[in-house]
Amino acid sequence: MSYPNANTLWAGTLVEELVAGGVDAVCVSPGSRSTPLTVACAQHPDLRVYSHLDERASAFFALGRAKRTGKPTPLVCTSGTAAANYHPAVIEASQSGVPLLVLTADRPPELTDSGANQTIDQEKLYGDAVRFYRDMPEPEAEPRKVRMLRTTVARALANSTGADPGPVHLNCRFRKPLEPTPVPDDHRDGVPEDWADGDRLAADGRDGPFVTTAQGAGQLDDGALSEVVSATERADRGLVVAGPADGGLGADALEALAGATGFPVLADPLSDLRFGPHTERAPVVGGYDAYLGTDAAADWPDPEVVLRFGASPTSKPLRHSLRDADCRQFVVAPSGRWTEATFTASDLLVADPDATARAVANGVRERGDPAWTERFRRAEQAHWEIVADALAGEYWEGGVLADVARLAPDPATVFVSNSMPVRDLDRFGEPREADLTVLGNRGASGIDGVTSTALGAGSATDDPLVLVTGDLAYYHDMNGLLALSRCGVDATIVLVDNDGGGIFHMLPIADHDTFEDQFVTPHGLDFEPTGDLYGLAFERVETREGFRDAFERSVESEGTQVLSVSFDAAESHARRDALGRRLVDAL
Amino acid sequence: MSYPNANTLWAGTLVEELVAGGVDAVCVSPGSRSTPLTVACAQHPDLRVYSHLDERASAFFALGRAKRTGKPTPLVCTSGTAAANYHPAVIEASQSGVPLLVLTADRPPELTDSGANQTIDQEKLYGDAVRFYRDMPEPEAEPRKVRMLRTTVARALANSTGADPGPVHLNCRFRKPLEPTPVPDDHRDGVPEDWADGDRLAADGRDGPFVTTAQGAGQLDDGALSEVVSATERADRGLVVAGPADGGLGADALEALAGATGFPVLADPLSDLRFGPHTERAPVVGGYDAYLGTDAAADWPDPEVVLRFGASPTSKPLRHSLRDADCRQFVVAPSGRWTEATFTASDLLVADPDATARAVANGVRERGDPAWTERFRRAEQAHWEIVADALAGEYWEGGVLADVARLAPDPATVFVSNSMPVRDLDRFGEPREADLTVLGNRGASGIDGVTSTALGAGSATDDPLVLVTGDLAYYHDMNGLLALSRCGVDATIVLVDNDGGGIFHMLPIADHDTFEDQFVTPHGLDFEPTGDLYGLAFERVETREGFRDAFERSVESEGTQVLSVSFDAAESHARRDALGRRLVDAL
Repeated sequence: MSYPNANTLWAGTLVEELVAGGVDAVCVSPGSRSTPLTVACAQHPDLRVYSHLDERASAFFALGRAKRTGKPTPLVCTSGTAAANYHPAVIEASQSGVPLLVLTADRPPELTDSGANQTIDQEKLYGDAVRFYRDMPEPEAEPRKVRMLRTTVARALANSTGADPGPVHLNCRFRKPLEPTPVPDDHRDGVPEDWADGDRLAADGRDGPFVTTAQGAGQLDDGALSEVVSATERADRGLVVAGPADGGLGADALEALAGATGFPVLADPLSDLRFGPHTERAPVVGGYDAYLGTDAAADWPDPEVVLRFGASPTSKPLRHSLRDADCRQFVVAPSGRWTEATFTASDLLVADPDATARAVANGVRERGDPAWTERFRRAEQAHWEIVADALAGEYWEGGVLADVARLAPDPATVFVSNSMPVRDLDRFGEPREADLTVLGNRGASGIDGVTSTALGAGSATDDPLVLVTGDLAYYHDMNGLLALSRCGVDATIVLVDNDGGGIFHMLPIADHDTFEDQFVTPHGLDFEPTGDLYGLAFERVETREGFRDAFERSVESEGTQVLSVSFDAAESHARRDALGRRLVDAL
Repeated sequence: MSYPNANTLWAGTLVEELVAGGVDAVCVSPGSRSTPLTVACAQHPDLRVYSHLDERASAFFALGRAKRTGKPTPLVCTSGTAAANYHPAVIEASQSGVPLLVLTADRPPELTDSGANQTIDQEKLYGDAVRFYRDMPEPEAEPRKVRMLRTTVARALANSTGADPGPVHLNCRFRKPLEPTPVPDDHRDGVPEDWADGDRLAADGRDGPFVTTAQGAGQLDDGALSEVVSATERADRGLVVAGPADGGLGADALEALAGATGFPVLADPLSDLRFGPHTERAPVVGGYDAYLGTDAAADWPDPEVVLRFGASPTSKPLRHSLRDADCRQFVVAPSGRWTEATFTASDLLVADPDATARAVANGVRERGDPAWTERFRRAEQAHWEIVADALAGEYWEGGVLADVARLAPDPATVFVSNSMPVRDLDRFGEPREADLTVLGNRGASGIDGVTSTALGAGSATDDPLVLVTGDLAYYHDMNGLLALSRCGVDATIVLVDNDGGGIFHMLPIADHDTFEDQFVTPHGLDFEPTGDLYGLAFERVETREGFRDAFERSVESEGTQVLSVSFDAAESHARRDALGRRLVDAL
């Protein structure tokens, strides 16, 4: 590798450190100021470059890839508003604890606040949303600076995947020339060619990154642990609650915990525990959203202990039920962040979820009352029978998610949009032994960037990708569809098109005027032309049979199919209520 | 007006203050937490509500409207990443000094950092990019709080349009219930109905806003003024440079200044001075980008004084020519911001541009050397003859902008995208007496939000709207096209489609490998389906005659037409160079 100038050396070294740190792909958007980074990425043989024209979509794509792989896909953009377009995804990454490494190109410091073109204030652009930020010094062929660069890149990667994973930001300043043009003046002996991979400053003698960070996992001491064990052991009635998690409790540890305690496991669809081979062996419960807080569970006693993992559950009935439970609640959060907004938890365990669950399982000598678990088992049975029965009848919106959970290939990546799809999957997605990786943007719960995040997740493996989205989310991130061709991703996209925000029908505002214009906001968009625009097959589906057929064809075929299903949002909500009443009657 | 609860009172009062402060339209995006604001906006009879589904597009739309009207179109969105989608437009507004009032809904303070759904850290979300920020207190029916609310809204508006205009941000916290449901407990006597428009706390006895801000304009003292006058008077050769301006120098003041000094006026296409009736009377020069810094002007002497208004000029030859001019340079910047990145200006005049120009005109007793102005006149004549001649020959990319400047109706709003269109208009847009309001996003010079900004500008008047954009910008803000139907805007959109970033051909990276993949980034998109998607007429134009016909038909007709013209970017640059060489030969 030859380094004709200091920018080239700097960017080449930076990219080499990324690869040494385990990075295998980057998302780059075209621009001028970022030229040194772009060229270095493009020239590295071990790096896949995903080129995105819309930085907002690019950042969500990187987020999705990181959700699926657990490691960051760095972002590269030019100076100016390009960097601000990353902001929504940076916030989502921060809220959901997903690693993201943002590399923004910037002008040299003398052009700050000068009126120079495309020069904005990029310092701390994402505020407190990032875990680590550095305004990088100007590239220079100087030993300590190059070591600082390597160290900082290695630390940025380590921070993004550390105890409190999330986004990190390096603001990278470059002055012209930006392209690989020889600038002998950049170093008195010419720019050293061997600084990136030679022995003097880098690779030799250092295996992997320039600086290796060994991140200790939080381990409770005996006193704290025996508190959890004894509270768990004393309880006849306990719950394990697994909320949405990026890197939460693993299936094996869950099995051990459920086996030792006998407690039901209430698994959010985004917990990565609702589906999987372990559901055969552990009492995984998925229908709680339908019966907790209703008359069906009105005479149930409170649990006596709750062990919570992951983020706050999607299900409002579950959250309220936990709020009203008069008992000790342990929240396991390795990041130390607070994850339940009812403020009823009594113990925050800043510790590794798997290790904690196993330690509790090992310590507990007595299982809970089988009658307690039996209540859940009966409720589950009744609920899933009603759902199966409903699937055979008139097609309804929630049935789409029920079908996706049943029909998704094993294995598959399933991405669900916010607003209604994730809620319907929560209520109607029956636990299943299949290895489904179910993901959603539940950190900030926006409807932005949904398609891009899904495609980013899909790009990371060969598993079939299924995205269930709504019409507002589909519209919001239409630009993200360009990644289908540019980034070589295939997907089955289920588009639940209500012509407007279906979720608002669930809110009290539905009873007021201004509702139709400002909340439902029918857009009247016919999305069929997106087929021609983005080279995908757009198909309307009217019946359940039609959907099953189209879905099964799509997941088995090449290319991307959008299966558009339409329901009346008000009717869909009425249907949810009706099924809920049937369940109350059945129990 | 009845106020069933404190949120309703709060939001209703806020919106009433907006209207009292001169606001006549708002851009609202659907969401739950923002319900009080949305309802108050929808119910106010004097407010037009533009509903946008994509907050990024919404913010640029508001920006465009403000560019055209000089006053803010407030933005309303829900909590979470919605607010982060405003960030690119907030930065553009900050950089170009355009008023923007951002109202973000937020959760009540007890939910900060709690893990509650759709709850992010919105405090100072836009960092230093806003001129004024307040985290608003919780709504309460309490006299001092309501007066504080009124005062703060009035001050926010005043700050957005003050001496240093730009974006302002009010973070508005609401707790449930969000809809207009009676909550008698919100006030011991019930929520007062008359607090918004009754005499106790508001309108009576106060005409207009609750607090009126009288903003003094910067006026130079006699000493500072006589410095400018004498430097101007002493100079045989002077230049008036009008850069891109939002609220810069007015045409009348310019005429006075040009008349008194006899200096040529180098008017950026975005200065609002390149076109207009004054061009008949003042020596407005528009071809400088073609001859300054070339052999055609190699033997010209330096100017002896330069009077600069507005932002840094778009033209790089002009900027470099000013950098190399060994003379006194006055920069008039009412905001006090620095606007030239070569750091050659000698005097910063923080003063009102019009008043300053008039005062200088009144003070100057001697005009400059006519031979100096004659150089420019001859160069202009030669350049515009070459452009006219070229228009008759083979069609080329720059000719599109030349035609738009010639054919745009009088009056019209013309919006040009960054990257090539604004540069081509700079070089090929001949000064013309027609009342063209030419706008662009030249603050941060992004290619994001171009369509939305243009449509926002178009929404503000009945003038025909012409947008000239490139394929990357068209793609980036495709969502913005939804405003055509939702916001009732008609436009003529000229789409210069090079299938990738044409500007990179101007940069040195064009000579390196990785160029095609990472810089030109051909996307292969055929934009014709956007016609069906957004209900617009999409037409491909191949020849100059075809373009003229289609353009003239479009500006006279209802609805929106996209006129797509395609050129090879490399050829376009070769053509620019060839025309430049012809000019050197001619002079």
